[in-house]
Amino acid sequence: MVTEAAFATRAGRMKASEIRELLKLLDRPDIVSFAGGIPDPALFPAEAFAEAYRHILAGEAGRAALQYSVSEGYRPLRDRLVGQMAGLGIACTADNVFIVSGSQQALDYLGKLYLSPSDTALVTTPTYLGALQAFNAYEPAYDQLSPGGNRTAESYRQAAAAAGGRVKLAYLSADFANPTGETLGREGRERLIDLAEELDVALVEDAAYQALRYDGEPIPPILALELARKGGDIERTRTIYCGSFSKTLSPGLRVGFVVASRAVIGKLVLIKQAADLHSSTINQMAIAEVAAGQFGEQVERVRAVYRRRRDAMLAALARYMPAGVAWTRPEGGMFVWLTLPAGLDAAALLAEAVETQKVAFVPGQAFHADGTGANTLRLSFSCADEAAIEAGIARLGGLLEGAIGRRAA
Amino acid sequence: MVTEAAFATRAGRMKASEIRELLKLLDRPDIVSFAGGIPDPALFPAEAFAEAYRHILAGEAGRAALQYSVSEGYRPLRDRLVGQMAGLGIACTADNVFIVSGSQQALDYLGKLYLSPSDTALVTTPTYLGALQAFNAYEPAYDQLSPGGNRTAESYRQAAAAAGGRVKLAYLSADFANPTGETLGREGRERLIDLAEELDVALVEDAAYQALRYDGEPIPPILALELARKGGDIERTRTIYCGSFSKTLSPGLRVGFVVASRAVIGKLVLIKQAADLHSSTINQMAIAEVAAGQFGEQVERVRAVYRRRRDAMLAALARYMPAGVAWTRPEGGMFVWLTLPAGLDAAALLAEAVETQKVAFVPGQAFHADGTGANTLRLSFSCADEAAIEAGIARLGGLLEGAIGRRAA
Repeated sequence: MVTEAAFATRAGRMKASEIRELLKLLDRPDIVSFAGGIPDPALFPAEAFAEAYRHILAGEAGRAALQYSVSEGYRPLRDRLVGQMAGLGIACTADNVFIVSGSQQALDYLGKLYLSPSDTALVTTPTYLGALQAFNAYEPAYDQLSPGGNRTAESYRQAAAAAGGRVKLAYLSADFANPTGETLGREGRERLIDLAEELDVALVEDAAYQALRYDGEPIPPILALELARKGGDIERTRTIYCGSFSKTLSPGLRVGFVVASRAVIGKLVLIKQAADLHSSTINQMAIAEVAAGQFGEQVERVRAVYRRRRDAMLAALARYMPAGVAWTRPEGGMFVWLTLPAGLDAAALLAEAVETQKVAFVPGQAFHADGTGANTLRLSFSCADEAAIEAGIARLGGLLEGAIGRRAA
Repeated sequence: MVTEAAFATRAGRMKASEIRELLKLLDRPDIVSFAGGIPDPALFPAEAFAEAYRHILAGEAGRAALQYSVSEGYRPLRDRLVGQMAGLGIACTADNVFIVSGSQQALDYLGKLYLSPSDTALVTTPTYLGALQAFNAYEPAYDQLSPGGNRTAESYRQAAAAAGGRVKLAYLSADFANPTGETLGREGRERLIDLAEELDVALVEDAAYQALRYDGEPIPPILALELARKGGDIERTRTIYCGSFSKTLSPGLRVGFVVASRAVIGKLVLIKQAADLHSSTINQMAIAEVAAGQFGEQVERVRAVYRRRRDAMLAALARYMPAGVAWTRPEGGMFVWLTLPAGLDAAALLAEAVETQKVAFVPGQAFHADGTGANTLRLSFSCADEAAIEAGIARLGGLLEGAIGRRAA
């Protein structure tokens, strides 16, 4: 049962209606929106999808696309993902691959699998809002995952016991995380594996943005690093890799995937069978066909556009942000994370930003499981072209300069 | 958290691999399968879907089809469903309609919304296996919903208290239920509403097969009957109507819907936002377009074919079943339910049926929350033509005659 308390959590309060209001801003030509956090629809390979659906539905074979299918997912897509994982240093078989309706669904199922009320989930501060929303339904306590910090396994254990349960999972996005854009280095990943081993918990690696690297050297996925420790035997690993096609091909088809040991996959398949039977048959086929035709080129095309936008945003931030504002320098993904001087409230500034400066962002507090972060905000550069980014950041800089000045006065 | 106990339940044990094995039988030309419980793929409007996907993806508008969308569902589809509901005597607005990834997902979300461990769910005996699987994740107790029986609200209350919780919902399929094919009459529906009112619980009406009536007078949906009591104000109703396009248009797109009060819909939308963000944008559009073009004719086409198959199955049962075997006479849907003489075990007979008689069915025990029903089995007539039905039932009759004879000897 989802309690009223769970509905009333900070994360739970960001209702569909509010998301819709934010999305609507994307359609207002007078507003520069850095709020979206969604891919630029102009980059979707729409023609390739049109051809894929046409091809899939032509002739008798099309009937299978419209029929029920198995809970673990469309086999040719799972086979394709085995190859994709091999390219990331992750040796696995199709039995280690499970198709979900977007990687958000994997987070819900993992919450369902691991979390009981008062159990503890370890999350970074800030973390992906959708992870908090998914986990909140199972009413966990949260503790702060700080791969660069000094917390011992024992300190997590004690805090979890004080909260009334045990640590059950650790969750993070290691590459170009939503909302900060930051990437965890190799050493941090190794320490995270150490911690998960010591705590004997599942380690959930959200790889939603992993393919979107614009510069710097790729760092092996956490699952690849753990596999290297375990003699390449995925059945001995505890990392659960959650992947997505939403940032590269299309989010509207709702096709994501999980790669993990068969022991974990088997339970997730049972959960899915009970929860929605299977992900859309025809969409899994369409993703498989479009990915087979042009996944690499599509990723390059998306990277090239977002790289220019990230560069434009970082350049504009350097030009227009007043003293006292700090920001991240992401090597990939869609997000830059701003920290304002303490005492400023980004949520309070949003209305003014939209009304007077015609610029939108997401206030950062919602991404904090502990309710902190009022002076932070998330900017997405994925849906605005370079000129709009320049103009929008200039206006945001003016707004923040005024707010900082008023506070000083 | 899903406990090992929940995984180990009877319903939980029917694994994806077993379902796949049963589905494979559909592809073996030497086997007549009455096991599927799935629509005949030859009846899918594949050309209309091909045209819909082509049209949706043509031009710039296609980008929206590939993009994220709102959790409550695609507005034109919800508007269309308002009209469809009006035709069933259910006055509502788009705010009362919520799109899910198949009505199975609605059952999972309703379990999540209402059930905590040791709460009681009232279900018929037998009931839809998928409902037990969806609810099992939340570890309820079950009590037997018997709309024709003499149980009082107080007796349910006491049994629920003895199980450690309260009655939280009542679930049933009122029309041509899976697995029995039976329909609850108007009086039974009214008594069910009385009971739900007395217990102050949600009443979940699974309408997956409602459109597939082959003869007899349609009975108003439970939600329509409750609405009539409440002055037509859906905001005062407790019935939660779960609808599907899977049996009429296509299950492979995973598009179903819920119609209920805004209070319920609002919570389900929040659950969905946290669980998988939204159902596939492009598939919702495709369903809306195909439904707008030909929903009525498609339903008529499907009904005509299944009506002939039902007639063939009932005629063959009358011809070939030995004395001691009883069966239902469904007015619609896909299923006939057989009751064998007590002491016979349908699960034990299945292997013999497949190997020696080349005929498959689903043993009935899995549909019983209380573990009874070993002497029952489900036959689906949806995927076999009349000649195959005649031949398959003849062989099944021979098998059962032998089993009854051996038992008597």
